Amino acid sequence: MAKKEKSRMVEAITPMDEDFAKWYTDICKKAELVEYTSVKGCMVIRPYGYRIWELIQADMDARFKALGHENVCMPMFIPESLLNKEKEHVEGFAPEVAWVTHGGNEKLEERLCVRPTSETLFCEHYANIIHSYRDLPKLYNQWVSVVRWEKTTRPFLRSREFLWQEGHTIHETAQEAIEETERMLNVYADFCEQSLAMPVVKGKKTESDKFAGAVSTYAIEALMHDGKALQAGTSHYFGDGFAKAFDIQFTNRENKPQYPHQTSWGTTTRLIGAIIMTHGDDSGLVLPPAVAPVQVVIVPIAFHKEGVLEKARELYDRLSADGIRVKLDDSDNSPGWKFAEYEMRGVPLRIEIGPKDLENLQCVAVMRHNREKSFVRLDDTLDEFSEAISQRLKDVHDGLYQKALKNREEKTYQCHTMEEMTAVLEQKGDGFIEAMWCGDEACEDKVKEVTGAGSRCMPFEQKQLDDKCVCCGKPAKHMVLWGKAY
Amino acid sequence: MAKKEKSRMVEAITPMDEDFAKWYTDICKKAELVEYTSVKGCMVIRPYGYRIWELIQADMDARFKALGHENVCMPMFIPESLLNKEKEHVEGFAPEVAWVTHGGNEKLEERLCVRPTSETLFCEHYANIIHSYRDLPKLYNQWVSVVRWEKTTRPFLRSREFLWQEGHTIHETAQEAIEETERMLNVYADFCEQSLAMPVVKGKKTESDKFAGAVSTYAIEALMHDGKALQAGTSHYFGDGFAKAFDIQFTNRENKPQYPHQTSWGTTTRLIGAIIMTHGDDSGLVLPPAVAPVQVVIVPIAFHKEGVLEKARELYDRLSADGIRVKLDDSDNSPGWKFAEYEMRGVPLRIEIGPKDLENLQCVAVMRHNREKSFVRLDDTLDEFSEAISQRLKDVHDGLYQKALKNREEKTYQCHTMEEMTAVLEQKGDGFIEAMWCGDEACEDKVKEVTGAGSRCMPFEQKQLDDKCVCCGKPAKHMVLWGKAY
Repeated sequence: MAKKEKSRMVEAITPMDEDFAKWYTDICKKAELVEYTSVKGCMVIRPYGYRIWELIQADMDARFKALGHENVCMPMFIPESLLNKEKEHVEGFAPEVAWVTHGGNEKLEERLCVRPTSETLFCEHYANIIHSYRDLPKLYNQWVSVVRWEKTTRPFLRSREFLWQEGHTIHETAQEAIEETERMLNVYADFCEQSLAMPVVKGKKTESDKFAGAVSTYAIEALMHDGKALQAGTSHYFGDGFAKAFDIQFTNRENKPQYPHQTSWGTTTRLIGAIIMTHGDDSGLVLPPAVAPVQVVIVPIAFHKEGVLEKARELYDRLSADGIRVKLDDSDNSPGWKFAEYEMRGVPLRIEIGPKDLENLQCVAVMRHNREKSFVRLDDTLDEFSEAISQRLKDVHDGLYQKALKNREEKTYQCHTMEEMTAVLEQKGDGFIEAMWCGDEACEDKVKEVTGAGSRCMPFEQKQLDDKCVCCGKPAKHMVLWGKAY
Repeated sequence: MAKKEKSRMVEAITPMDEDFAKWYTDICKKAELVEYTSVKGCMVIRPYGYRIWELIQADMDARFKALGHENVCMPMFIPESLLNKEKEHVEGFAPEVAWVTHGGNEKLEERLCVRPTSETLFCEHYANIIHSYRDLPKLYNQWVSVVRWEKTTRPFLRSREFLWQEGHTIHETAQEAIEETERMLNVYADFCEQSLAMPVVKGKKTESDKFAGAVSTYAIEALMHDGKALQAGTSHYFGDGFAKAFDIQFTNRENKPQYPHQTSWGTTTRLIGAIIMTHGDDSGLVLPPAVAPVQVVIVPIAFHKEGVLEKARELYDRLSADGIRVKLDDSDNSPGWKFAEYEMRGVPLRIEIGPKDLENLQCVAVMRHNREKSFVRLDDTLDEFSEAISQRLKDVHDGLYQKALKNREEKTYQCHTMEEMTAVLEQKGDGFIEAMWCGDEACEDKVKEVTGAGSRCMPFEQKQLDDKCVCCGKPAKHMVLWGKAY
C-alpha cells in the first residue's frame, strides 16, 4: 500500500529530463509554493513558499543590519514627472510599468506608476534630508513588492509583481560607493553559498547589460540543473548621475557644495526559483536546511505499538528545544505516503522510528538529497542524538553545495571560436561557456545571435584563455561567461 | 550651554495644548518617523519609524503564529470583475480605490484596482484550494500595504497607502469562525495593553459602522490624549456571504456540499499614531519599551575624564548581551543636547554616568515619561545593575499604562440625555461618553449630528445606565461608547 501511494505521488511530477519547464511548474504547484490567480503574472505565494521567503528575509536582513543598513519604506507610487527625471532610467523602465490613472471616481491630474524599482523615490527623499557631509552615508534598504509588466511570465522567475529587497545607499565619495557596491555583491554571494548551498560566479555586466542609469552593474550568476544561467542578485554603482538629475547636493568638508555618489542592490523571490532548479529532483523540491520551513520530519513507524509515539514526541521536543524546525507527523497516513509527501516538499532530513529501533536504542535518519540512510543512537540524555541531527543537517548543506558545484563545473566549457561554442551547446547541452571578448557590443550581439548564448558577466576571476575575441578575432579585453539565461 | 540647547529643541515642537494636530505632525517629522513625498497621502517611513513597525510586526506575528496562523502573500491587483462579486463589499470600497488602466504602453482589457483590502483575492484562492472539510480551517495572514484614495490625509492616521496585516480565515462552522473573530480581537487587545501600554475598550460595531460585507464587526477603541477616540484594530465575522458570492464550497463530514464561514481582521501603521497620541508629551515622543528601537540610551558625562567612557562601554556591553536595545552616545554633542534629542525620540530610559558616579559606584537612571531619577548601583558583576535596568523598563511600561488608563478614566463620562452629552463635551472637552441606545440607526445618526460624537462601539462589558435611549426615550437595547474619532 505504502509503496503504491509513493509511486503514485512520484508519477505526479513530470520527470526533469522529459520536460524541465513542466517539472519546474509541477514542483511550484505540488509542493504548494504558489497558486495562479486571474491576473496573469500575479501569483499567490502560499504558506510553504512564503515561509521560505521569510527565512531568506530574516537571514539576509541580519546580514544587512550587521553592516549598518536600516530598513525604510517608500511609497509604491511614482509620479510620471519624477520617473522622467533621469533619462536612461526612464527609458529602461517606462515601457514596462503599470499606470494608475484614476483615484476613486476621479481622473488623476498626473498619472502614477506602480514602482518597478525605487531609485527616483529615494532620490527625491535624499534631496530633502541630505544637507551636509555629516548626513552621509545613508545605508537604506526596503522589503517591498514591485511591478514590471512582463509579456512572458513564470512563477518566481518572471512575474509581473514580485517581492524583493532593494538597498539604496548614498555616500560622500565615489570610492566609498564603489566599495559598498562590491561589499553587497559579496554579501549576496556569501548568502547564496552559506544559506542556499548555491555556488555563484561574481562578475561585472557588460555595458549593454547594465541597469538603466548605472555607471556599472555587478551580478552573481548561478547555473541551474538544466544548464541555463540565472542572475541571482545585482549591485549597481551610480556615480553622481542620479544626484545631478535630482539635484542632491551636500556641503562637503571644505564647506563647498558637492554631489554625492549612490548605489543600489537587489535580490528577489526569484531566489526561490533558483533553489528549485539548483537542488530539486524528480521526487520534488530539495531545500537547503537554512531556509527549509521544516528541517526535520519525524515519521513514527507502526506507531500504535507501545512506546513509539512517546519516543517520537520526546525526539520532537528535544529538537524543538534546540532550535531545529521539526515536524512530527502522527497522522493516519501510511509511512510511504508521508515519505513521498515530505520528499515532494524537500524536507532535508527524515527521521524514522519504529518498534525495532526502540529495542536497539536508535532511529533512522534519511537525507533527502541522496537518500543516504544512517542509524542515530538514542542515548539517555538525547544530547548525542541532537548533536548528530545538527551534524546531519550540516552534511546535507555541504552535500547540496558540492553537488551543485559539480554540476556547474561539469557544465562549464572553454571555447576559442563561435563554432566551438555552437558545437559545445549542441553536443553537450546548455551550460556556462568561458570565452574571450574584444569589448565591442557588435561582437557581443553577434555571439548571442549565432550561438544563442548571451553574455552573463565578466567574472572578477579573469582567465587569459586566448589573445583574440571569440567573434571578430581582434585583441581580447575580457573573459566573458556566456550562457542562456532565465 | 546645555540648558540653552535643550530649551531650543523643546521650543521646536508646538505645545500639545496650543495645537494638538500641529504637535502631532511636529513629532512625526522631528522624531524622524516620516517624511512627506510629492504624492499626496503617501509618505516615506524613515528608519526610526520603520523600526517601530518592525518591532510591532515581530511581536504580533509571533502571537499569530502561536495560534497556528500562517503568512501568505496575495497579489496587489484585483480585477474589477472580481471586486464586483460581493455587492456590499464593492459598494464600500469602489469609491476609494486606485485604478490601473495601462500596462507598459498598452491599455488593459480590464482595469485592475490596487487592493484596498484582500477579501476578494482570498476568496478566489479559497475556491481553488478548498474541497473537503479536511482542507479546513485555513488560518492565513499577510503583511502588505494597501491603498485607499482618501481626501484628507495625515501621517499614520489616514494615508492613501498604508502598511497593515490582514488576517483571513475560513472555517467549517459559523461557531468556529465567530470564536476566531473574538479570539483575534483579544489578541489585539492583549498586544495593545502588554506591548503598547495602551488600554482599549473591546466592543461590537453598530450595523451602520460594520465592514462592507461583514455580518458583524468587532473593534478595539483607545482614547487619545486629546480625548478623541482611535480605532486600533478590527475583527470581522463574514458568515457564509462571501463564500456564496464566490462559490466556495466544501464536502462536509456528511459528504454533502456546504458553504464555509469566514473572518478577517486587521491592524495598521495607525498604531504608531496611537502610540504618539497616547504617550507623547511636549518634549516629544514617548515609546513603550516593547516597541522602542532604542530602549536605553547611555549618556556619559564629562567623558574625557578617566574611566568614564570605559565604564559606559562596559554598561553598554552588558545590556546588549542581555538582549536590551541599548545605544551609547559618545558623540561630541553636549549632554544637554543629547538629553533633549533622546527625549524627542522617546527613548524610555536614559542612563547618565560621570566621574562622580564612578566614585560612588553608581549611575543615574532617568525614566522618560515622568523624568523620575534614581541611582543604580554598579556592582562588580553588573548582574544587579542589569536586573535593575530591566526592572526600570518594566516600571516604565506600567507607568505608561497607568497614566493612559487614568487619562481615559478621567475622560469617560456617563450621560442620560443628549443635552448632557453636549454639555459634557463643551465643558470638559472631548472624551468617551457612555450612554444608552435603542438600536435605531436614526437615533445613532441624530446623536452624532447634534453632539458631534458618533458611536464608537457597543462595549462587551455592558452597563445598564438607564432604561431609555439617550435620543428618543424609547426602551434602550445597548450601552454605546460615543466619541469623536480619528
